[in-house]
Amino acid sequence: CIVHKRGADILHDPWFNKDTGFPLTERDRLGIRGLLPPRVMTCVQQCDRFIESFRSLENNTKGEPENVVALAKWRMLNRLHDRNETLYYRVLIDNIKDFAPIIYTPTVGLVCQNYSGLYRRPRGMYFSAKDKGEMMSMIYNWPAPQVDMIVITDGSRILGLGDLGVQGIGIPIGKLDMYVAAAGINPQRVLPIMLDVGTNNEKLLQNDLYLGVRQPRLEGEEYLEIIDEFMEAAFTRWPKAVVQFEDFQAKWAFGTLERYRKKFCMFNDDVQGTAGVALAGLLGTVRAQGRPISDFVNQKIVVVGAGSAGLGVTKMAVQAVARMAGISESEATKNFYLIDKDGLVTTERTKLDPGAVLFAKNPAEIREGASIVEVVKKVRPHVLLGLSGVGGIFNEEVLKAMRESDSCKPAIFAMSNPTLNAECTAADAFKHAGGNIVFASGSPFENVELENGKVGHVNQANNMYLFPGIGLGTLLSGARIVTDGMLQAASECLASYMTDEEVQKGILYPSINNIRHITAEVGAAVLRAAVTDDIAEGHGDVGPKDLSHMSKEDTVNYITRNMWFPVYSPLVHEK
Amino acid sequence: CIVHKRGADILHDPWFNKDTGFPLTERDRLGIRGLLPPRVMTCVQQCDRFIESFRSLENNTKGEPENVVALAKWRMLNRLHDRNETLYYRVLIDNIKDFAPIIYTPTVGLVCQNYSGLYRRPRGMYFSAKDKGEMMSMIYNWPAPQVDMIVITDGSRILGLGDLGVQGIGIPIGKLDMYVAAAGINPQRVLPIMLDVGTNNEKLLQNDLYLGVRQPRLEGEEYLEIIDEFMEAAFTRWPKAVVQFEDFQAKWAFGTLERYRKKFCMFNDDVQGTAGVALAGLLGTVRAQGRPISDFVNQKIVVVGAGSAGLGVTKMAVQAVARMAGISESEATKNFYLIDKDGLVTTERTKLDPGAVLFAKNPAEIREGASIVEVVKKVRPHVLLGLSGVGGIFNEEVLKAMRESDSCKPAIFAMSNPTLNAECTAADAFKHAGGNIVFASGSPFENVELENGKVGHVNQANNMYLFPGIGLGTLLSGARIVTDGMLQAASECLASYMTDEEVQKGILYPSINNIRHITAEVGAAVLRAAVTDDIAEGHGDVGPKDLSHMSKEDTVNYITRNMWFPVYSPLVHEK
Repeated sequence: CIVHKRGADILHDPWFNKDTGFPLTERDRLGIRGLLPPRVMTCVQQCDRFIESFRSLENNTKGEPENVVALAKWRMLNRLHDRNETLYYRVLIDNIKDFAPIIYTPTVGLVCQNYSGLYRRPRGMYFSAKDKGEMMSMIYNWPAPQVDMIVITDGSRILGLGDLGVQGIGIPIGKLDMYVAAAGINPQRVLPIMLDVGTNNEKLLQNDLYLGVRQPRLEGEEYLEIIDEFMEAAFTRWPKAVVQFEDFQAKWAFGTLERYRKKFCMFNDDVQGTAGVALAGLLGTVRAQGRPISDFVNQKIVVVGAGSAGLGVTKMAVQAVARMAGISESEATKNFYLIDKDGLVTTERTKLDPGAVLFAKNPAEIREGASIVEVVKKVRPHVLLGLSGVGGIFNEEVLKAMRESDSCKPAIFAMSNPTLNAECTAADAFKHAGGNIVFASGSPFENVELENGKVGHVNQANNMYLFPGIGLGTLLSGARIVTDGMLQAASECLASYMTDEEVQKGILYPSINNIRHITAEVGAAVLRAAVTDDIAEGHGDVGPKDLSHMSKEDTVNYITRNMWFPVYSPLVHEK
Repeated sequence: CIVHKRGADILHDPWFNKDTGFPLTERDRLGIRGLLPPRVMTCVQQCDRFIESFRSLENNTKGEPENVVALAKWRMLNRLHDRNETLYYRVLIDNIKDFAPIIYTPTVGLVCQNYSGLYRRPRGMYFSAKDKGEMMSMIYNWPAPQVDMIVITDGSRILGLGDLGVQGIGIPIGKLDMYVAAAGINPQRVLPIMLDVGTNNEKLLQNDLYLGVRQPRLEGEEYLEIIDEFMEAAFTRWPKAVVQFEDFQAKWAFGTLERYRKKFCMFNDDVQGTAGVALAGLLGTVRAQGRPISDFVNQKIVVVGAGSAGLGVTKMAVQAVARMAGISESEATKNFYLIDKDGLVTTERTKLDPGAVLFAKNPAEIREGASIVEVVKKVRPHVLLGLSGVGGIFNEEVLKAMRESDSCKPAIFAMSNPTLNAECTAADAFKHAGGNIVFASGSPFENVELENGKVGHVNQANNMYLFPGIGLGTLLSGARIVTDGMLQAASECLASYMTDEEVQKGILYPSINNIRHITAEVGAAVLRAAVTDDIAEGHGDVGPKDLSHMSKEDTVNYITRNMWFPVYSPLVHEK
């Protein structure tokens, strides 16, 4: 690897710094001999050393409030990230199960809430309302010549925590850590972006430590002009980048998706990623309920929550039914029931979110605004899916009503993050809806010890199963947009990843530990869908023709070969 | 200030990074617009923000073991130091009383003991036994073109904690922080040095995380060749630097002092700095006991501890008596009694440390090996001075014996660091030796509420009163060596700094809060002594002639004008 700096500058640069990992010859070559303690350590020894001090942090903070401990752990990982990226990702990949919940949900929510106090070193880029007309030049301040993966947020709806303004930058940072760990995107080619268009969060505007622009959120055309200007600037400098929108409020999640998905290589993880993982779970549920995947067309599903996530899932599931049954999308909504904060959505509803119109039921079937219990009792659905952001909304009564489901193994999906916002806990679901249910949640819950000695398995429907594969598959396909076909392929691949034996035990999702293998499979499915949709333009020296000649297995190997893995590579200085 | 880097590299460089302190125009000029959160903060706001999170750390760690809290505070300051040096020193100078005990004694001892675990980013340079023959080229790896102040240690006797090998690097780092805070040495021109010649600390050699050279300590010629090679390399590159030796074991503290003080601009703070502060206290004590400073020639002093510190103090005090009374050094030892771990040192003693021979008493006066109590009862000294490194050695019996002192206000100096090694606590001294004593210690103790309602004042005889002035005065004088006259001038200046009123109340040393004013006075005294000794060669564009024409007041102003103060200066990029 060629570097254009030497001496102390290399030790200050987290991309190249190996710290005690620099071998003696390299210390001489790069002019850093004497600037480090004499001891040379291997990457493995450095990892052990980090884990040892991490465990001692755990011991020192025993008995302290959970939030204090979580933030202390985040700070420790964050400092390593700022010092030595190679070691950071090595530690992350080797301990993904322990560390994913710290650098991403649920801890990342806490980090965003406390960002003004936690902020130490900048990461990623900030484009604010005050940078109008400047972005095309500002984009060239980013030090990396090539960028593969961009995650952007405007901070308007961070997890279930609402408008956190500039403090939302924690999300794109955490998300891209996942892309590097799970998809092997090169950390020197990721770029977290905060579009700071102001905030309506009064508490932040009054906070003297707030790091963002102190004005109410831009709206309408003024808002879109900022996003437009950024997209133009980013794709001018990096035409083959993939941009992922994250944690935008519903109206702009759908608004920007519609505005850009035909023009730029972008997708929205809350709408499409969550939907894809949920769809994979729904497809898996049909198998778990003892029926073939194709019977998904008859699956009765009640969805609670009509924000960007709820609508995204329902839309994708309806598309899958339409595609499988060869019927129109509106016909395919027959077995879907959408409930928002005002109850069941029917055609009687006024001032309806444009994204929800497709799912409005005929009030003759069930009255407008019917409660969750009413709808469950009437429909006896196979699946009750929550993406409401309202903690505990699946109360005892709702869960007990699900015992009447047409399936002997009713499915409860409590998908909202963070943990406090989950529609119900795993323990309550198994207790009130029965020991034989299929349970999935957005946040981590422990498996449940059932009375019959069996184990109630908890599936954490983490977006992490899909977005890395969608991003990597799109990148390596060279597609200029992300089609529904590519997303659909990702879901179906994830659903078929589980063995029959696993699915029968109610296990819908694989263990995070082999996330890279899952990502390679999902990425290959996405790439092949891009080839089928005839939009693949190839990547680097692999052209579209080469891609189309690859077998399924070749494609998985091609994806795997392009995954970056954290190892120290020899550095050679060039002026 | 001209910088040869721009963009993200500036944010990574703690010398130039202002973080949110970069004004908008500068962000454009340096190509960092967008790489920082939009908010621009003043240095004062950044300081407030840091102090706020420091206070919340204090709240979060209430009730935790003192060591855990001290290290947590050190880590927080250390991270800031690695990020933004200007802000670090601003916070340090504005809160010197709170932070000096964290970045230097007593916490720095803890830091060294735990350095292998605490180590995150390298600071300063390491020259090891394995770098023999390489140092002349290695010295040019240090990024700063000019170095004013170097502090070196070989880790052989860290505070009272013994041989800590490479982990002793914490001392030069902490010490130079003090030079920057107290003397205004420019942080870009300080250089902490660890001479890692191995360690005899078995525990460290077995510790898998140990960062140093795993071999027993070099001895004799082999050892001196390493020190020689370093001194040659350092003064070849920076001929006008000042080198301060710190925490070498006694034999090498004296050995290197003798070997280099005529050839290089160097001094040893344990031997000469501690002695100077103690001497200032001893001179002040004569005033506190109601007699003029000149009566110091009759002061009877018992010194407990014959390590590098004990011998250094006694030697300097004897020189002061010889100089004041116009008699030889051996005559001047008449009123001095040196006690080591084998009791009173007399001419009967065999295998005596070369530095202690001068002070060996005639056994006829008091028997060889007499205990502290025996000597105190016999001599009835004005002062009992401890530099033994043995906690609690001034027990109740010894303290009570001091009531028989020839002075109605006997002085107890318990000077060893860290706190656990102090010869006695302040409370015990006032309780057993009487409420009217004059008390001084090396580590911090609270003042003592006396029965008569008065306050027993505790003087922390911190080296911090002198070494900054010695370093800065020597630097600005341009002297090529540090003479005894320059050191003597520093002590006398410190002793005369206190008003009569303060001295009567038993206050021997000023408050640390106005450390910069003290340093300017002491620095001026050192500079003028260099001029008197005719070894001043001037600094920068101020030649020796200009120095010699300066009045005392001019000299203090000249010193003050040359003190660096942490403010953000505009940065201009030049390729």
